[in-house]
Amino acid sequence: MTGDLAAGVDPERLWERHQHLARHGATEGGGVNRQALSAAEVGAWREVIGWAKDSGLAPFTDPAGNLFLRLGGVDDEGAPVLTGSHLDSQPSGGRFDGVFGVLAGLEAAHAIRSAGLELARPLEIVAWMNEEGSRFVPGMMGSAAFTGAAPLESFLQVSDADGVTVRDGLAALHAAFSELPLRPLGRPVAAYIEAHIEQGPILEREGCTIGVVTGIQGKRTFRVTVRGEEAHAGTSNPSERKDALLTAARMIGALDAGIQAGDDSIKFTVGRLDITPNAPSVVAGTAVFSIDLRHVDSDVLAALGDRIPAICAAHSGRCSVDVVELTNSRSLAFPETMTRLVRGYAGALGIPAMDILSSAGHDARFLHAVCPTGMIFIPCKDGISHNPRESVKKEDLAAGARVLVEVLAALATR
Amino acid sequence: MTGDLAAGVDPERLWERHQHLARHGATEGGGVNRQALSAAEVGAWREVIGWAKDSGLAPFTDPAGNLFLRLGGVDDEGAPVLTGSHLDSQPSGGRFDGVFGVLAGLEAAHAIRSAGLELARPLEIVAWMNEEGSRFVPGMMGSAAFTGAAPLESFLQVSDADGVTVRDGLAALHAAFSELPLRPLGRPVAAYIEAHIEQGPILEREGCTIGVVTGIQGKRTFRVTVRGEEAHAGTSNPSERKDALLTAARMIGALDAGIQAGDDSIKFTVGRLDITPNAPSVVAGTAVFSIDLRHVDSDVLAALGDRIPAICAAHSGRCSVDVVELTNSRSLAFPETMTRLVRGYAGALGIPAMDILSSAGHDARFLHAVCPTGMIFIPCKDGISHNPRESVKKEDLAAGARVLVEVLAALATR
Repeated sequence: MTGDLAAGVDPERLWERHQHLARHGATEGGGVNRQALSAAEVGAWREVIGWAKDSGLAPFTDPAGNLFLRLGGVDDEGAPVLTGSHLDSQPSGGRFDGVFGVLAGLEAAHAIRSAGLELARPLEIVAWMNEEGSRFVPGMMGSAAFTGAAPLESFLQVSDADGVTVRDGLAALHAAFSELPLRPLGRPVAAYIEAHIEQGPILEREGCTIGVVTGIQGKRTFRVTVRGEEAHAGTSNPSERKDALLTAARMIGALDAGIQAGDDSIKFTVGRLDITPNAPSVVAGTAVFSIDLRHVDSDVLAALGDRIPAICAAHSGRCSVDVVELTNSRSLAFPETMTRLVRGYAGALGIPAMDILSSAGHDARFLHAVCPTGMIFIPCKDGISHNPRESVKKEDLAAGARVLVEVLAALATR
Repeated sequence: MTGDLAAGVDPERLWERHQHLARHGATEGGGVNRQALSAAEVGAWREVIGWAKDSGLAPFTDPAGNLFLRLGGVDDEGAPVLTGSHLDSQPSGGRFDGVFGVLAGLEAAHAIRSAGLELARPLEIVAWMNEEGSRFVPGMMGSAAFTGAAPLESFLQVSDADGVTVRDGLAALHAAFSELPLRPLGRPVAAYIEAHIEQGPILEREGCTIGVVTGIQGKRTFRVTVRGEEAHAGTSNPSERKDALLTAARMIGALDAGIQAGDDSIKFTVGRLDITPNAPSVVAGTAVFSIDLRHVDSDVLAALGDRIPAICAAHSGRCSVDVVELTNSRSLAFPETMTRLVRGYAGALGIPAMDILSSAGHDARFLHAVCPTGMIFIPCKDGISHNPRESVKKEDLAAGARVLVEVLAALATR
C-alpha cells in the first residue's frame, strides 16, 4: 500500500550523501565548484557509482557523458522509467542543485529493492552532462544529445576558458571510466520524472513541502558584442572615444530599464561581462555581455526578447553592436497524467503540496519532447541557489524522495 | 657646432630597430604584448644590450630590474646624465610607446661616440621596469624604486593574474642576465631627459614635429568594489536582487555623467571591470572596476576625485560599495632650464616645435623629484597609442633623436 515504499527512504543517509558529495569541488565558503567534465565531477561520479553498486544498480554511460544507474525489470528490454538530474554545478554553486535529483533517485531505487518490489520495466537513475552551462555554453548538453534536441557533434568543438573542448572533456571522462558499458543515445524512455530544489521562494513562503511542477518557464538568451576602439586613458578626448565598456554599461542600464522595467514577472539578467583589454589606463576596445531573459508567458517572452536588438542599437553611441540569440525556448506544460501522479502521492502520504511553475530551466525540458515528463520540487531556504549559501532541510529532502519513490513505482509497475 | 651630432642620427637604423624590437611579444594585429618582466621583455633586453655593446656602451642593471647602458665620461665617478623610457607595453600595445625613448637614447649615444665627443660626465640610457602597470599594478615601479618615491619592498608582493609576483619576475630577470653588474638604487643623477611619442593628437594637428614638454598632467586612480549577492537568473525576483553587475553598470554611467560631464579637459576612464562569478545564468555577486581620472589643473583634479565616493554611494542601490584610492599625483611643471634646452636645440636644428603638457604619466614624474628633468615629444598618427595601430613617421623618430642628442651633449659636457 502507499507509504510502504516511502517508509524505506532513510533521511539520515540521504542527508549525509549530500554532505559527502559536496567534498568533490568544495570551495572555501562551504559551496561547490564542480563544473561539467571536471576532475571534481569525475570524483562525484565514483562516489555515486559506489553507492549505486551497493544498492544493486548497474552503472553505464553513453557518448554524451551521461551517467546511468540501472535497476532491471521483468521486461528488461522494455523502455526504462528514467529519473535523475545532474552532478555539475555553477562556479560558485551549492550542495543540492542537481545533486538532490540524482541522490533521491538512488534512495528511491534502494527503497524499491529493499521492499522486494518487482518492476515491470527497468528503472534508471541518470546524471545528465553539463546541465549548468557555465564551463561549456550552452547548458543541458547531455539531455539535448540524448533526446536528439541537438546532435552531440554540435557540442564537441565548444571550449572552456582554457581552450579545453567538450570533445577533450568527454575523452577524459570515458578514459577515467573505461570499465563502464557505453550505450547509444536516443534509447526510448517510458517516462521521466526529475526531483529538484525549487530555486525560488514560493514553496517556503506558502509552507508547502512538495511542488507539483506544471511546466517550465520560457527562456531566451543572447550574446551582445560592443566594439569600440582602444585608446590612452590620459590623452584621448572623451568626446572622440569609442569606449566599449562605458557603452556597454549604458546599454545594460537601458536594457534593464526598457525590458525588466520593475516587473518581477520579467526575469532579465546580465550575468557575464568580458572586457578587452581590461586594463585600468586603456579605454576598452571590446565588451561582450550575456542576456538571460525569462517569462512564464511565451508571447510576452517573444515580444520582450524581440525588443533587445533595437535597444542595444539605440544605445551604441560611437561603438558598433552585434546581438546574437543563443537559445529561444517557449514555456511548456507537463502532461496532466504526470502532475496527477505527483499530486496524488503527495496527498496520499499527507505531505503538503501545491502546483508550481518552474522558473529555472531543467533537463526535463528536453525529455518532455520524447516521453511523459514531470518534476517534483522541494523548498530551499530564501529561494537561494547557484550560491554557496544554498540550503535545504533534511526532512524536505526525505519528503521529496518519498513522493518520488511512489511515483516511480507506479510508473514502472504499470 | 649645433647639428654635427644630429647629423650622426641614422633614420633608417632607428626605424629598423623599432620594427625589429616589435618581434618580441608580437601580436596578430601587428601590435605588441610585452608586459613587464615577461619572456618577451627579456628578449627585447637581449636585443637592446647587443646594439648597445656594438656602440661601445656598458650594460648593467639594479635590484628593481631597470636596465642601464653606459657611456663613460671624463669624470667617470660623477653623476650621470640619464635618458630613456621603457620596453614594456600594454597587453595590446604598439611599437613606439616607451621603445622610442630607449632607442633614441641609443642612437644619440652612438652619434656622440661616432663624433668622438668627450663627455664631462657619464651618459646612461635607461629602460625602466614596469612603466605600464598592466601586468603588475601600479605602473612606473622601476623609476619609483630608483628615485625612492616608493621602496622596492612595497612592490615585491604584487602579483599578476596568474599569481606570479614582482619578486618572482625580478628573480627570473636577474637569473636571465646574471652576467650584468648590479648597481644600487638611488644613485645621484645630474639630469634626466625622456623622449616619447605624444600619445595625443595635438602635435599632428598643429603640424609640429617636436613637443617641448612643460609638465605632466595630474592623475588619481581608484578601485571600486561593488558587493551584491549571487542568485538564480531564472527564479530570483529582480526587485529583491543585489545585482553587482547591474549596479556597477549604473554606477559607471552615473560617474561618467557626473565627473566627465562632456568636458574633454577631464579624462575619466573605467578601463577594467571584473565580475564574479561571471556566469550567464547567475546574478553577479561582485563587480570590481578601476577609475583613472586626469586633469591639467591639480585643484580641479582634487575636487573631481573627491566627488567619486559620494557618487558611488548614491548609486549603490541594494549593494554595498567600497572605494579605495590607489594613486594621487598632482600636475607638475618641468624646470625652465630643461624646457629652454629642448626648445633651443629644436630651433637651432630648424625643426618646428611647440610647448605641450603631457596628458599621459611617465617615469619622468619620479625623476623630476630628484634631478632637473625634461621630455621631448614627437607626433603619433591620430593620437592613438596603447593600440596595435600606434603609428609614427620615420622622419619624426629621427627628428626627436636629433634634438635629444644635442640636449644630451649639452647636459653632459657642462
